[in-house]
Amino acid sequence: MINVAILGFGVVGSGVAEVLTTNGESINRRVRDEIRLKYILDVRDFPGSPYAGCFVKDFSVIEQDPEVDVGVETIGGATVALDFTRRALQAGKSVVSSNKELVATHGYELLQLAKEKQVSYLFEASVGGGIPILRPLTSCLAANELTEVCGILNGTTNYILTRMIRGGLSFEAALKEAQANGYAERDPSADIEGHDACRKICILAALAFGQHIYPDQVPTEGITGVALADVAYADSCGRKIKLLGRAIRMEGDKVCAYVAPHLLDGEEPLAGVEDVFNAIAVTGNAIGDVMFYGRGAGKLPTASAVVADVIDAAKNIGQRKYLDWGPGAPDITVSPDVLSDRWYVRAQAPVDEVRRRFGEVQLLARPGAPVGETAFLTGEMTLPELDGKLAGLQADSVIRMFH
Amino acid sequence: MINVAILGFGVVGSGVAEVLTTNGESINRRVRDEIRLKYILDVRDFPGSPYAGCFVKDFSVIEQDPEVDVGVETIGGATVALDFTRRALQAGKSVVSSNKELVATHGYELLQLAKEKQVSYLFEASVGGGIPILRPLTSCLAANELTEVCGILNGTTNYILTRMIRGGLSFEAALKEAQANGYAERDPSADIEGHDACRKICILAALAFGQHIYPDQVPTEGITGVALADVAYADSCGRKIKLLGRAIRMEGDKVCAYVAPHLLDGEEPLAGVEDVFNAIAVTGNAIGDVMFYGRGAGKLPTASAVVADVIDAAKNIGQRKYLDWGPGAPDITVSPDVLSDRWYVRAQAPVDEVRRRFGEVQLLARPGAPVGETAFLTGEMTLPELDGKLAGLQADSVIRMFH
Repeated sequence: MINVAILGFGVVGSGVAEVLTTNGESINRRVRDEIRLKYILDVRDFPGSPYAGCFVKDFSVIEQDPEVDVGVETIGGATVALDFTRRALQAGKSVVSSNKELVATHGYELLQLAKEKQVSYLFEASVGGGIPILRPLTSCLAANELTEVCGILNGTTNYILTRMIRGGLSFEAALKEAQANGYAERDPSADIEGHDACRKICILAALAFGQHIYPDQVPTEGITGVALADVAYADSCGRKIKLLGRAIRMEGDKVCAYVAPHLLDGEEPLAGVEDVFNAIAVTGNAIGDVMFYGRGAGKLPTASAVVADVIDAAKNIGQRKYLDWGPGAPDITVSPDVLSDRWYVRAQAPVDEVRRRFGEVQLLARPGAPVGETAFLTGEMTLPELDGKLAGLQADSVIRMFH
Repeated sequence: MINVAILGFGVVGSGVAEVLTTNGESINRRVRDEIRLKYILDVRDFPGSPYAGCFVKDFSVIEQDPEVDVGVETIGGATVALDFTRRALQAGKSVVSSNKELVATHGYELLQLAKEKQVSYLFEASVGGGIPILRPLTSCLAANELTEVCGILNGTTNYILTRMIRGGLSFEAALKEAQANGYAERDPSADIEGHDACRKICILAALAFGQHIYPDQVPTEGITGVALADVAYADSCGRKIKLLGRAIRMEGDKVCAYVAPHLLDGEEPLAGVEDVFNAIAVTGNAIGDVMFYGRGAGKLPTASAVVADVIDAAKNIGQRKYLDWGPGAPDITVSPDVLSDRWYVRAQAPVDEVRRRFGEVQLLARPGAPVGETAFLTGEMTLPELDGKLAGLQADSVIRMFH
């Protein structure tokens, strides 16, 4: 018998209870043992819940019950969740989490603690919702020297961009629609400003390159600056605007990680990822490119990943599941300013002036463009080089091109 | 020290040696032990090879060397490979394989033998080349009741179809080009007649649904019947023709598995999979749809998957890696004739006659269609129902629509 305690009965926590119940029979068959939901920790009351007998309000009940093998942390944030995770690990319990903020900010410490206590700390659900990505990254691609991990890591922003591209909605209108459909929070800033994607690329980078990368080491730009005009110009040259989180292995074991909108060629597999779907592309020296695609959020998909980790932890009670990275360092990251790429620019400037500064460029057109607006694709250069050439011009939009 | 023997030094076998050498340092770090390539078995001589000291011609040298922990079977076929795999497992060695034919025909027996001997029998590379799919299917999606596994499982046929769709080449010309590029064998029948995809869907079905499905239980149709006219009609309604292997969970724990060309909506993620790429979509009751995408063949991608299994076997010496399915049975499979879908039909028949038989249909047009040719999309029905309605008409092409 493996006893599980769910910490936090919100969307994901209740999804975990549902999956454990609905698929209990086949799950037990896989574990070759019985998984029992013993506790659910929540400050709220849930009268009439089918799990009524499980609720507790005091974490120490769980902490002090030696029968509890696995804690499922679906609280979110990095305050209470950090405290409970530390205490659960300290008490010799494995912890499974969907909490990207906690892993991105305290992952190294918590993995060390788990190692010390010979228990598992697993967090497949923290990136890409239900998409299997962390386990494939660490086991299936273990034969590779990985060179880049890159993905559409946030479903809310991908939904908004998809509605702008396919529905012709403005950013504001698309955001409102996303909120109405439950795809965006009332305070959407963590999504639209890129912070959610930032946390996820930190976790992917740490697993791919072996050192903790902290969110404040990752330059992060969201999609609030993307205008319908940019979507139209991108479309005119067969491209799509997507918010990407990228982590690239650089010389000397450094990592270049950042989050920003990119112009993707329509033929790129990532360009076809629409609506709330997420996808993560991984490049290795043997495998080339592989991509993992699916629903990056939602109650049951996320719960599916959490429960897979519960199964994994249950099958490895008493033997720590190997998942590890180093502490990181301030000088481990390199600014994306060093990356030489092509750029999309929309500026208030005559074509002649653009040509004088950039030489031959690929000019773009869109219906209804105001007089004086010039949009174009540059040759390869770094952002500081681009900024130099643009100095004194009014550039309304500058977006990096992907590959 | 973990000693490895490669059985068969062809494309994949030499790729495995290359990956083990090139990425040896990081691989050893992951295993926390040293992996050493001790033997390469091949009947041929490889003078001047960097692995010259490893070659042996007699399998019994490997079989009888107690130092060998893992055998890598990259021989192919189900004769010698079967004999050596049996003997290696019998001798208490783990075996890692890229051999889909062997796994699809003798997987149950070999897994049982591995279980008995407490060693691993792993074959990630047998499906989807380098794409991580078998391990995610069995571990990351373990919380789900899976309902369908479906994929573009053969790179050669996908390349041919892509060249027909995008290059306007006939089937014969596209096949010749694939052969010239090394994407198709001189005898391409295993690919173009669907047998390769059939073996792969057998393995996926066994892992997803827990019972061995044998190739002769899987109705298999290749792409030799797909004409440029069909490609053009598909394009006219925003669809693409792809060869899919499908395994669907049916009532009473039965499985419907088959291989056939399908018309896919252009918006389907699988429709965007081009050239020699493969992709596998998995549907579960919690996760919804996830898709795994990458190079389905090739020396280094396939070697990447083989070496990941070697690492896995090495980390689990003395404790069997759980991978298992039942023996299967003749009555476990259900014919795809029971599936109700829409259909694409190209027939020599007047439109009026088609309407008389089918009622309202979606008529398709293509430039240069000969007089008397009618192409259309039907409503939902089974294949026997369709055949009934078509009786006495000359139907040149009948293709199932996907979703």
